[in-house]
Amino acid sequence: MTRQTIVAPEIAVSRWFNTKEPLTLAALRGRPILIHAFQMLCPGCVTHGTPQAEKAHRLFRDSDLQVIGLHTVFEHHAAMTPVSLEAYIHEYRLTMPIGVDEPSTAGPLPVTMGRYQMRGTPTAILIGRDGAILHHSFGQEDDMALGARIADALRT
Amino acid sequence: MTRQTIVAPEIAVSRWFNTKEPLTLAALRGRPILIHAFQMLCPGCVTHGTPQAEKAHRLFRDSDLQVIGLHTVFEHHAAMTPVSLEAYIHEYRLTMPIGVDEPSTAGPLPVTMGRYQMRGTPTAILIGRDGAILHHSFGQEDDMALGARIADALRT
Amino acid sequence: MTRQTIVAPEIAVSRWFNTKEPLTLAALRGRPILIHAFQMLCPGCVTHGTPQAEKAHRLFRDSDLQVIGLHTVFEHHAAMTPVSLEAYIHEYRLTMPIGVDEPSTAGPLPVTMGRYQMRGTPTAILIGRDGAILHHSFGQEDDMALGARIADALRT
Amino acid sequence: MTRQTIVAPEIAVSRWFNTKEPLTLAALRGRPILIHAFQMLCPGCVTHGTPQAEKAHRLFRDSDLQVIGLHTVFEHHAAMTPVSLEAYIHEYRLTMPIGVDEPSTAGPLPVTMGRYQMRGTPTAILIGRDGAILHHSFGQEDDMALGARIADALRT
Repeated sequence: MTRQTIVAPEIAVSRWFNTKEPLTLAALRGRPILIHAFQMLCPGCVTHGTPQAEKAHRLFRDSDLQVIGLHTVFEHHAAMTPVSLEAYIHEYRLTMPIGVDEPSTAGPLPVTMGRYQMRGTPTAILIGRDGAILHHSFGQEDDMALGARIADALRT
Repeated sequence: MTRQTIVAPEIAVSRWFNTKEPLTLAALRGRPILIHAFQMLCPGCVTHGTPQAEKAHRLFRDSDLQVIGLHTVFEHHAAMTPVSLEAYIHEYRLTMPIGVDEPSTAGPLPVTMGRYQMRGTPTAILIGRDGAILHHSFGQEDDMALGARIADALRT
Repeated sequence: MTRQTIVAPEIAVSRWFNTKEPLTLAALRGRPILIHAFQMLCPGCVTHGTPQAEKAHRLFRDSDLQVIGLHTVFEHHAAMTPVSLEAYIHEYRLTMPIGVDEPSTAGPLPVTMGRYQMRGTPTAILIGRDGAILHHSFGQEDDMALGARIADALRT
Repeated sequence: MTRQTIVAPEIAVSRWFNTKEPLTLAALRGRPILIHAFQMLCPGCVTHGTPQAEKAHRLFRDSDLQVIGLHTVFEHHAAMTPVSLEAYIHEYRLTMPIGVDEPSTAGPLPVTMGRYQMRGTPTAILIGRDGAILHHSFGQEDDMALGARIADALRT
């Protein structure tokens, strides 16, 4: 079996939290990246996905993994503005870098969400040192399985 | 031992969700009332308090208990507008009547929150058939204890 | 609708833990009783039912409710002896009175379990002050609902 | 910094469950091994440690990781006999190989527990392909961290 390599498209972010400098995949090339796409009013994100991404951010702090939270608002746009997101980040004590996925002029899906053809939130995307997508999953993911995948990406 | 009766002050609500008619304590006199004060970005409310109030709303559906959710925004006002609350109610499948505590011109605390001298969110207030406050608690409350208190209020 | 009153049959216990005197329903007549039937190796009991009964024992400590744990072994008899039960009670910090349901000479079901026609474990049986069975449920029961039922039984 | 390599001592098992052949570290040399030491009446094992080990057994099924449950009874010996353990394994649907740590004639601690100087249960010990102890932890361990450690051990 051979697997076709899919190069991760660049992320489009209109505003950043928890980072002084904007992040780009181009600048991070050479490091594994975990993108956690979420919406602040998505119950499965609040309960499971976002705490899991924050845990990965803290657990692998001494490695060169980069965790990026991506606020991919594709519904209830007026309810999940950057102002609301900022309060959410504060109340939930999130410390990982979080970017707001750039709204699209073409429709409700933001730009990065469209580029990655994400099916909804939460979505976890793991990118290897060479920029290839190693794993793309929608919905709840097991902590142990994710920990193993990240360790594999760090080893490569 | 004697306990001084404290009559529950009227609630002040600027907007309602999940009810056709506005609710007032005056009109509900004769029925027990459970007020659940919350903020949509308060983690302890999202995880425990609000699901608990919604559970009470469903469990005692055939009794004459009235459960009222009260969105008492006292911080991050721009982040927790009625528009955001409406999306929150939709995403978390809340069916109990929910009122927005009327903003105050005097300060950050909304009107009802001030009248009841609530210490924060979540707060649960149980009111008897005679309009007296039976119980006022701040923070996480045990389901079994709350179920017993509501049953007592219904029996009286 | 009328409901036929079923008088709770007496319990048959071969050994007691956490009580100086043996308990009988006859002697407890006039008080509400919650019987929690369990097996120490039943996962649903360990995770949910037994902690719930212990919680009721502690929560209603100042009332005249009597909580009784009943070890109704109907399978793996050699694995759940009183010696094993004693260690279980110690390790799980159980303080409610617990009786060993008397083994039957007629088959694997112990005597009390047979008298009550219990379907398995965990089973919760709530008995009123008059000795009538108020509620008999098999499986997981909600804390809030049970709290309300107990409060009702105490009020009657 | 240099770390002294500690070679994992052989396990001593008096009885096996869930495996046709007895397992020895010697025969497993070349494969990573996760030893989960537990007692069937230890609440922290029942709730967290044992389900975690069983999860690792299933998650890494297609790798050459060997998970071994080790019943290290050091208290309540009469309560946790192999007969009771067999029922426990059945009721909790455990499928990983489980060995009974060999009782010692010298005292309450079984042989393997003594050799590894375990502090209690649950204990997790991860052994590398070369037979060196990679990690030895007492108490609750995070799923994500354990997943990463196992992946690292598999990669080496």
